[in-house]
Amino acid sequence: MVDYSLYLVTDRSLSRGRTTCEVVKAAIAGGVTVVQLREKDCSTREFIAEARALKQLLLGTGIPLIINDRLDVALAVGAEGLHLGQQDMSIADARRLTGPDIVIGVSAESLDDALRAQADGADYIGISPVFATTTKKDAATPLGLEGIRRIRRAVNLPLVGIGGITLTNAAEVMLAGADGVAVVSAIVSAPCPRAAAAALKQRLRVEK
Amino acid sequence: MVDYSLYLVTDRSLSRGRTTCEVVKAAIAGGVTVVQLREKDCSTREFIAEARALKQLLLGTGIPLIINDRLDVALAVGAEGLHLGQQDMSIADARRLTGPDIVIGVSAESLDDALRAQADGADYIGISPVFATTTKKDAATPLGLEGIRRIRRAVNLPLVGIGGITLTNAAEVMLAGADGVAVVSAIVSAPCPRAAAAALKQRLRVEK
Repeated sequence: MVDYSLYLVTDRSLSRGRTTCEVVKAAIAGGVTVVQLREKDCSTREFIAEARALKQLLLGTGIPLIINDRLDVALAVGAEGLHLGQQDMSIADARRLTGPDIVIGVSAESLDDALRAQADGADYIGISPVFATTTKKDAATPLGLEGIRRIRRAVNLPLVGIGGITLTNAAEVMLAGADGVAVVSAIVSAPCPRAAAAALKQRLRVEK
Repeated sequence: MVDYSLYLVTDRSLSRGRTTCEVVKAAIAGGVTVVQLREKDCSTREFIAEARALKQLLLGTGIPLIINDRLDVALAVGAEGLHLGQQDMSIADARRLTGPDIVIGVSAESLDDALRAQADGADYIGISPVFATTTKKDAATPLGLEGIRRIRRAVNLPLVGIGGITLTNAAEVMLAGADGVAVVSAIVSAPCPRAAAAALKQRLRVEK
């Protein structure tokens, strides 16, 4: 079983000049439980090299490496998971090509998306965005805590909230029914990603 | 054996508002022998949909569909081939993930690239660019006809010239030792892609 509680999504453009490896290393020390590598503007060769470097970094930690969008990269490096947006490969195609052992996550921007992802065989759902965010330029309308509650009632997969999650609201996201919070800038743009991850982790210890 | 003689590389941005399917359909009627789908700015889902549509169009023609860069798309649609640039996945990774049945082509921008591609197990080599081109913004220094001759002497794989190839110089490219010419704008931007393909095909019937 994957521990989705503190789910880091990388973004090199928001990492203040630090490499993705540097940020991830610090975030691991701070307690992240999942690492998703997201690259939108680099070559396939560079994406694979970055993924291999993270795989090495995560070796023996038990923290799964999840690749955003690109099944080719996930297969090339033997990643533990693949995260699919609504404009990425379909779950059916991905499952056929990966076999049953790879975790497949899907971004849901609505209850309908979430229900469809569950029916199609997703392993977890990213609820996106929970709050307004500037990190993702094409983000849909925020679903809010009420959106999490509605999806929680309808879906029995692990749910990870993403979008605008900070120290201030992380506990509420968990209390609304999420199994984890995913963050980009709250860790990668923090002055100290390790301390930022540790502080978030602390907030997640909520009584449900 | 693949007939590489008239190798079409798609580019929707240069297709004058026509869809890739429309252009490819016309180009098939004109006699192209290979179709490579190249997409650099669309989502994975859209890339796969386009590739599936072309696969359908090529069904029964014997013309292989080759996917540029993206092994995930090639696997998802069951394409006959994958074309890798120097910044794409390595041949070793690709071969391991595709198995032996998919044709793997590699772009070589130098004799060294071509020798390495041959050693790594490529099935054919795209010599790129032969002449100056405006189609590919990051193209390397043109290798010229002399570049084809040098690579021809050193490498025994099928060679396909690409870059700046037109009706005027296509025959020279074949005479220099290429097994085929690859074109983008000479077909996709032509007023009539069918006629453009047929005219090119005519020029390729050279005595070696």
